[in-house]
Amino acid sequence: MTSEARGQERRTDFNALFKPQSFAHVGASPRSAPGRFNYTAFLRNMKYAGKLYPVNPKYEEVFDLPCYPNLGAVPDEIDLAILAVPAVHCPEILRGVPPGKIRFVVIHTSGFGEIDKRALEGEILQLAREKGFRLIGPNCMGIYSQQGRIGFWRDHWEIVDRPGSVGFISQSGGHAVNIILAGMDAGIRFNKVISLGNQSDVSINEILEYMGSDETIGVVGIYVEDVRDGRRFVQILREVGRRKPIVVWKGGLTAAGKAAAATHTGSIAGNDAVFTAAMRQAGAITADNLYMLLRLVRLLQPEFRLPAGRMAVFSPGGGNTVNICDLFSAYPNLSLPRLSPETQEKLKALLPEENVDVKNPVDPGAVGTLRLDQLLKVVGADPQIESLMVLMSVDYLSNIETEENRVLAVEMISNMFSRYSQKADKPIYALLQQHRQNHEDFDRYRRLMVAKFDEKHIPWIDGSFKEVAEVFSKLVQYKTQMRS
Amino acid sequence: MTSEARGQERRTDFNALFKPQSFAHVGASPRSAPGRFNYTAFLRNMKYAGKLYPVNPKYEEVFDLPCYPNLGAVPDEIDLAILAVPAVHCPEILRGVPPGKIRFVVIHTSGFGEIDKRALEGEILQLAREKGFRLIGPNCMGIYSQQGRIGFWRDHWEIVDRPGSVGFISQSGGHAVNIILAGMDAGIRFNKVISLGNQSDVSINEILEYMGSDETIGVVGIYVEDVRDGRRFVQILREVGRRKPIVVWKGGLTAAGKAAAATHTGSIAGNDAVFTAAMRQAGAITADNLYMLLRLVRLLQPEFRLPAGRMAVFSPGGGNTVNICDLFSAYPNLSLPRLSPETQEKLKALLPEENVDVKNPVDPGAVGTLRLDQLLKVVGADPQIESLMVLMSVDYLSNIETEENRVLAVEMISNMFSRYSQKADKPIYALLQQHRQNHEDFDRYRRLMVAKFDEKHIPWIDGSFKEVAEVFSKLVQYKTQMRS
Repeated sequence: MTSEARGQERRTDFNALFKPQSFAHVGASPRSAPGRFNYTAFLRNMKYAGKLYPVNPKYEEVFDLPCYPNLGAVPDEIDLAILAVPAVHCPEILRGVPPGKIRFVVIHTSGFGEIDKRALEGEILQLAREKGFRLIGPNCMGIYSQQGRIGFWRDHWEIVDRPGSVGFISQSGGHAVNIILAGMDAGIRFNKVISLGNQSDVSINEILEYMGSDETIGVVGIYVEDVRDGRRFVQILREVGRRKPIVVWKGGLTAAGKAAAATHTGSIAGNDAVFTAAMRQAGAITADNLYMLLRLVRLLQPEFRLPAGRMAVFSPGGGNTVNICDLFSAYPNLSLPRLSPETQEKLKALLPEENVDVKNPVDPGAVGTLRLDQLLKVVGADPQIESLMVLMSVDYLSNIETEENRVLAVEMISNMFSRYSQKADKPIYALLQQHRQNHEDFDRYRRLMVAKFDEKHIPWIDGSFKEVAEVFSKLVQYKTQMRS
Repeated sequence: MTSEARGQERRTDFNALFKPQSFAHVGASPRSAPGRFNYTAFLRNMKYAGKLYPVNPKYEEVFDLPCYPNLGAVPDEIDLAILAVPAVHCPEILRGVPPGKIRFVVIHTSGFGEIDKRALEGEILQLAREKGFRLIGPNCMGIYSQQGRIGFWRDHWEIVDRPGSVGFISQSGGHAVNIILAGMDAGIRFNKVISLGNQSDVSINEILEYMGSDETIGVVGIYVEDVRDGRRFVQILREVGRRKPIVVWKGGLTAAGKAAAATHTGSIAGNDAVFTAAMRQAGAITADNLYMLLRLVRLLQPEFRLPAGRMAVFSPGGGNTVNICDLFSAYPNLSLPRLSPETQEKLKALLPEENVDVKNPVDPGAVGTLRLDQLLKVVGADPQIESLMVLMSVDYLSNIETEENRVLAVEMISNMFSRYSQKADKPIYALLQQHRQNHEDFDRYRRLMVAKFDEKHIPWIDGSFKEVAEVFSKLVQYKTQMRS
């Protein structure tokens, strides 16, 4: 196969982008200052299994790897080259590449269309056409791929051995970094994450289509400011949405946000009302901030079941039960049905103290947590109830005296969740709260609980009751539309 | 003065409740299990300066203090007695008290009107009238008072040496506990906190009036489910609101919440629409969840200035600038005016990199933080701008290599905030974000930053941009109504 024929064929083979056999880093440096995007260092720490080619005329070696003066000198075809050099040098670097030698180029650097240097961006795009590579960016971070063992942040080696089913597409590079940082110790198991930047060539539509057909991806999260071909986007959302949930967070929906987006990624945004209506029609789930996006994606991972709206909530403290009722009843598709008289009687037998509430929310009082096994069984058997949620206060662990016993308590609670999940056909969620903030011990208690819940695949959610209600309303809505 | 005359006179002297000279704990025990409300232990740890009388017929001594068999046997008048014994024993305990001996009784125990034992609650109230004491509760936690050195949770000794100006009134005992836990390491300096429970006798109206005239209190937060005399409540809100801000969170605003509130504190709630309108008319600031309440109260502490709505925001990362614009423009009283051409030019001179944005939000790029002093001065001088906000990412500290240097960086940043605040007449806020969650180092970085900001009295806010925008809209609205 000639290089040119290969150039035609490879157009849509994004496997080579996410699982590159060879990776060139232009602008490689042996100095690995924190905060600098040293892709060569990142990939070595991630034990990247393909061929890694640092490129920089200043060095002969980078981290014991031979370093090449330019891309043309690399003695191999290159699946993925990342350019982390000033924008103005990019055309000259790419001009020297033989056609067909490179499949994908990521231009990390900013300083193109988003600051009105559209001619420079056009020049790069023209080179992509001439040389037969596809271009990601410019003005982006690159790609994280668990299977490909590539990443774009110094922490990514920490999660590369952990398989996951979450795909993320972020137009913003900063958000791509933050999405992984926020999710990596918070139960989000990443499969592939891509930062698209100015979308000069490769667009969100192509990547969404690819992630849609990637069977290792079970849920897709999107942050986008600029959809170039909106009609096609909606079509792909609808097609992919039949197979897996998609959460879309659109930046620049307001006039003020739009102006900022033009500066950020050179976006020219369309009509907001049309966009929002189209998302609804396409069956996409929408988010309007980073935390909402992450909470939705975490609970949409295919290892978890989707909730139905008739929920039973276990929540210690009368104030909590009142507020949960208030905030859940803002959503017509959520309800906390009063438990049946039989269920209430059984609960009363298990909870003989006076200071309990057995209607729903169930306030199990002081000793309730120790009997969670039985309480879950009783409430789960109530035909009115479709889903269960248990408020777990991290602060509760401060009542337990040694760290050893706290670990055992978390283990015991997790086992009760797991046992219930294995037997019952109704999904159950942990609602995590940490009241004492900014305290070394309580922060550690939270980490203890989150780590154990993640290890045992117990779905959890944090945030205010208001945020929790909004997330569950969206999940129930999604489940309903999937059924119909 | 006879005891009876004293009984008449003392009705509204709540100083004896919040700064009692003598405190009796009925149900005292030398066993101080975690999770148990051992008020005797709490007050000893808080170095309570008055006379402390444990009462329990089972013991002769509790923590080296003589323990009395009943309240009548205590050889002193008692400003405040707290009953932490089963509900059914309360009448008998109080029947033995000589009239006029006790000024205030807190009944901690639940199991009264909220579970339909209204006769029992009536009996207690009748005894209060006969014996001349005022009753707090039943079904409540009691009182925290920094000046009085009394509290109701084992952690309260940690903050009792720290003066503050925040008053809190919570009908829910659980929320009273959580409000202090959530605020104590998060910049909220408590003055007095009271948990009111069923409000059998002493009501929110009396306490709000008292806190209104207490010159050491600068802001009042309220969680209430049940306002008995709504007209009077609105009147007091309006009167007190002229002197200090009041934040009201009302539980049981919905039908579902109301039903739960009836079980929680025996509340019979009124008309929601009327209540909400009345709050607006009375000039109270409203919150609908715990975190919102706490964020508002923190920023309303009198040590901080109130924001005006034309804001400049410093925020690294293009995605952040877009999202801040989107979420702030949901509120008509917030705006991010484009900085003047002169201001933009001066900023460009300070930020020669390409990847910056100088319009507003200002994206200072990689080196911007180091020049924050100059940037603040330039932007603060722009006549369009009334308030400044700087996004401080906790994660930023992970770019710095030693803990010593991280401490220095936080010190340097705090000093820049402080210097600006001292010179400028425009308020400035730090918007704290922690992207990497549940990680020991990043949790420590957050604590480092929060502790330093609190030490230097730098106003900060956390949460999603959506929550931040809502809080600032409410603060600006409050400032506007104060002016008019």
